[in-house]
Amino acid sequence: MENIRRYPERARTRRADLDAVLDAAVTCTFATVVDGLPWVVPMLYARDGDRILLHGSTGAGALRLAASGAPVAVCVSLLDGVVVAQDLFHSSANFRSAVVRGEVTALPAEESAAALDALSDGLIPGRSTETRAHTRKELAATATLVLPIRAGQWTVKIRDAPPSAPDVSDGSWAGVVPLRTVADRPVAAPWVADDVPVPESVRRLVDRYATSTAMVSATSAGFSAPSASTA
Amino acid sequence: MENIRRYPERARTRRADLDAVLDAAVTCTFATVVDGLPWVVPMLYARDGDRILLHGSTGAGALRLAASGAPVAVCVSLLDGVVVAQDLFHSSANFRSAVVRGEVTALPAEESAAALDALSDGLIPGRSTETRAHTRKELAATATLVLPIRAGQWTVKIRDAPPSAPDVSDGSWAGVVPLRTVADRPVAAPWVADDVPVPESVRRLVDRYATSTAMVSATSAGFSAPSASTA
Repeated sequence: MENIRRYPERARTRRADLDAVLDAAVTCTFATVVDGLPWVVPMLYARDGDRILLHGSTGAGALRLAASGAPVAVCVSLLDGVVVAQDLFHSSANFRSAVVRGEVTALPAEESAAALDALSDGLIPGRSTETRAHTRKELAATATLVLPIRAGQWTVKIRDAPPSAPDVSDGSWAGVVPLRTVADRPVAAPWVADDVPVPESVRRLVDRYATSTAMVSATSAGFSAPSASTA
Repeated sequence: MENIRRYPERARTRRADLDAVLDAAVTCTFATVVDGLPWVVPMLYARDGDRILLHGSTGAGALRLAASGAPVAVCVSLLDGVVVAQDLFHSSANFRSAVVRGEVTALPAEESAAALDALSDGLIPGRSTETRAHTRKELAATATLVLPIRAGQWTVKIRDAPPSAPDVSDGSWAGVVPLRTVADRPVAAPWVADDVPVPESVRRLVDRYATSTAMVSATSAGFSAPSASTA
């Protein structure tokens, strides 16, 4: 695969680029250090302005450790395509990725409900307006964590290009296979009656995947960005 | 979102489950510890028997550190669906995830070419048989890393179920929005003539996404597994 020194990944430095990548995904890999060892877990997240919101059980040991001020890193990545060059060395992937570093803090109970609403709405747009409020017991069982987004504490890398042009083409095919995430028709739970309509928030969730999909496709086909490479 | 103590994630302990998750994805988050801080990067990978193969530039500092015996963790996760419960607390995600811990070693030059072929073939099935061999210069520029899969050094978690049934249904909709990755029509690079056929390996890559897709869809719709939850 492609050599990152020869064709550096395209690092982006605008905050808007970070926000765009963070807002395009709903899962991240949360990393911290436990007893000197790397500790990682996939998590749902949402960006809320200058904060990344995360949540977990108050019983999860590593999250408790992280909330006590241990350094963390959150990694988001989206695979947008497989880049097929005429040789293996220059083959690569189109992707968007972001890493945000810092320390997380646990939100106090009085701010937790609003953050959990924002987290749910990030995943299922507007869902919090359709459901009952959180109960005191639910809030007590949930650790709501915040990772502030601070200047100098994040990196964004994007590759969105065809394979780099060979010095001499051997006449063979080269190009990109675009990949994207799609939502299928919602499947009702067994106890839900057939005539219960799918809520607006769920329709918006399905639409969002259709939308982001069309955007990614258009970008990948257009090859607007200069060549860069994956690690 | 759902409380992991009340509805624990479904941990899987069979090695076949680990292999199935590792073989379903092509990107991972690679984590290590640098100067006491968590360090993460998204990477392409492939499983080759009892090894996870990774590669990067020989100039990448953190990879060089990792190859010198620093502890690492590799996290793979696939988001299979959004689980919509009648309340926010029990909403969740269907997913497959794996974490493999250990130490990576850099392969000696004489083993590197075969490992890079396996890595490419994991991403683009059979591609290594269609391209020229690696050059000596390319091999020298590439760090090929191996993370052995060892008993007791990995975890797999899978949630694949509808929302947990409420004690009392309020009559509203609940269910799952299945998500899946699809491949679009390959886009040829600008210098490739119109009549050059898409290679067999690329057709197999496209087919693989179509196939894994149908499998995921069927599983999600079937709700075969008991209820469990995301972190």
